[in-house]
Amino acid sequence: MGRFMMNSSTSGCRVDRLVSVLMESLHNKHVETWSSDGNISTCPFQVWMYCRLYRTMDRFHKPEILEAAKAGGEFLRKFARVSTSSGQWKCAFCLTRDGKAVKIQRTIFSECFYIMAMDELSRTTGDKDMQLEAEQMMEQLIYWVRVDSSGLGRPQLPGDVATNSMAIPMMLLCLVQQLTEGRGQEVVQKYRELGRWCVQQILQHMQRDGTAILENVSLDGQELPGCQGRLQNPGHALEAGWFLIQYSAEWGDDDLQRTAIDKFVELPYQNGWDKEHGGLFYFLDVDGHCPTQLEWSMKLWWPHCEALIAFLMAYSQTKKPELLDRFSQVYEYTFSHFPDAKSGEWFGYLTQEGKVALDFKGGPFKGFFHVPRCLYMCERILDDLLANKD
Amino acid sequence: MGRFMMNSSTSGCRVDRLVSVLMESLHNKHVETWSSDGNISTCPFQVWMYCRLYRTMDRFHKPEILEAAKAGGEFLRKFARVSTSSGQWKCAFCLTRDGKAVKIQRTIFSECFYIMAMDELSRTTGDKDMQLEAEQMMEQLIYWVRVDSSGLGRPQLPGDVATNSMAIPMMLLCLVQQLTEGRGQEVVQKYRELGRWCVQQILQHMQRDGTAILENVSLDGQELPGCQGRLQNPGHALEAGWFLIQYSAEWGDDDLQRTAIDKFVELPYQNGWDKEHGGLFYFLDVDGHCPTQLEWSMKLWWPHCEALIAFLMAYSQTKKPELLDRFSQVYEYTFSHFPDAKSGEWFGYLTQEGKVALDFKGGPFKGFFHVPRCLYMCERILDDLLANKD
Repeated sequence: MGRFMMNSSTSGCRVDRLVSVLMESLHNKHVETWSSDGNISTCPFQVWMYCRLYRTMDRFHKPEILEAAKAGGEFLRKFARVSTSSGQWKCAFCLTRDGKAVKIQRTIFSECFYIMAMDELSRTTGDKDMQLEAEQMMEQLIYWVRVDSSGLGRPQLPGDVATNSMAIPMMLLCLVQQLTEGRGQEVVQKYRELGRWCVQQILQHMQRDGTAILENVSLDGQELPGCQGRLQNPGHALEAGWFLIQYSAEWGDDDLQRTAIDKFVELPYQNGWDKEHGGLFYFLDVDGHCPTQLEWSMKLWWPHCEALIAFLMAYSQTKKPELLDRFSQVYEYTFSHFPDAKSGEWFGYLTQEGKVALDFKGGPFKGFFHVPRCLYMCERILDDLLANKD
Repeated sequence: MGRFMMNSSTSGCRVDRLVSVLMESLHNKHVETWSSDGNISTCPFQVWMYCRLYRTMDRFHKPEILEAAKAGGEFLRKFARVSTSSGQWKCAFCLTRDGKAVKIQRTIFSECFYIMAMDELSRTTGDKDMQLEAEQMMEQLIYWVRVDSSGLGRPQLPGDVATNSMAIPMMLLCLVQQLTEGRGQEVVQKYRELGRWCVQQILQHMQRDGTAILENVSLDGQELPGCQGRLQNPGHALEAGWFLIQYSAEWGDDDLQRTAIDKFVELPYQNGWDKEHGGLFYFLDVDGHCPTQLEWSMKLWWPHCEALIAFLMAYSQTKKPELLDRFSQVYEYTFSHFPDAKSGEWFGYLTQEGKVALDFKGGPFKGFFHVPRCLYMCERILDDLLANKD
């Protein structure tokens, strides 16, 4: 930490302060479920988060957290999987409170979240059957992505050309890291090639001579025509960034680490930060046109969560002080805008100017995930930094 | 017009001025197609609008408008219909420029728009086959809505309980009016029962002792639980309002006219108008909670178009001066916020405060429809008012 102490305007004391603030935030978080009124979307990520906290952090190693996670897991296992007409298993995107499927998306994401929950729960309870089930769903998912997507239920239309959408390889890479973390060589090798493929697919989103990360590219890594091709999602790129940093650390790949930090952390920040009002835009058009998404200029909580993790992880790997400065800048904006000082928790949706635009704490797309994962990841990284300071 | 001249603060001169302003707006409108970059969504409503203008307004009776409409109609007829695995015809929601289907929605709306275009084009060209085709698609559509929706492609899920969503009966009523307008008794009688059913379905959205129009209700007309049940869409209610006024005029139903004006025009305006910044909210929660739609507080062009038609039609039917005052109020907001004084056309999306939030004139959901239909309808009504002034 010597270099950091000497070169950076942000001092070690500052890191200590951040740690204590973050820890306090995490301590104060209300661990609660959310329900969208009549229908309950027991978010698999909530199960994942409870298990992760219970399993890896002493102060969350409480029976009520384990019980809530197990109850959620049982609910998901019993009701979330739906057999389709193609004979494959899909997962419901939304269920009623008593477990009836309301909607099944024609994408892979509900299944990804299911795998995350099942694998993490199996690690917590030691349930090998559950781990096996997660791996079986993973096989199904890989088949959809890499062999035949017809089981997803989308009619095959001649104009619906397959594209490389950032979310797919990102999500799969996240799953590879989940399924292999701390497991034996056999499992690591099983997913080795898939991990490499994910990284290569993510890197294809680096476009225009490395000056932009585009959300959608062609399957052979070319820019797509139209507004779909010009779309940037800075928060998504930053999230991919820390997935890549994590992967590069795991495999000792310095080139990838450099690319991840320069192109998937620093660049989306440069392109996506609102110089006038602060905060990260939700969507941008790489040519400066107006995106077609009505919410493009809003400031959402989750891109800021992902940016905090990405910059702190980038700093922890490189000790470059400018990365910690950037973390502090994102931190200042985030913690002065999103937390609700009066009633706790974070608001999720601000106007471009930083005013709260939607005042609920939990909703169809905001559950117990991005905020606690961010605080958890940041605390872990800060702990490591402090432990290795001298 | 005597009563109007004497009782209203808005004078006959004012109506004249409105007519001339609106006529000028209509004259200055650029009749152009829009394309969403790579993919072209030849909006069937654009074909409908061209035909309607060509057929009913002398100054638009130009060969280039007819040719554009016919070209659009041929494109749609050749490419938009897609045979599904159930053996039924669906219409693509989006096509590539060369006519390949990109997306088929699991709803009835693309088919509704197709019927609108085909029927209006058949009226313009006298093509009886095309009229027949529109009526055949209409039969298919009625079957989906009233008998069996499985052909739409949604898997039947136990938690996916059918609801009465305002859009469905509204759209069907619009189609009934399209298919029967000016046609013989045989056709009128054919759709008589359906028209009555649509009206009854729309009226079910009047809830809470007639103090609110809710966007989604149960099939037996009860309020639904949760945020879906509490949702209000003032622009939609206002559009339904003028459909109902039109229907009540056609069938001489004074009770329905009163309900339409009080509950589907005046009430959504009262509940939906932003008292602080002016303009109609996009979505509201009837209990005053924050809607879950990120764009809830934005001011969109189309609810204002529908409000203009609704209030002017309500005034023309009743000659109640307060309705013309209301029209003027909406008019002032609309024409001082949406038109682009510099480059023509209207912006579509403003922030709550009235700032342009998205600066494009045409996009995935803004084509040649709501603005010209509004100007067209208002001009027709104003013409009638002026013609019957003395």
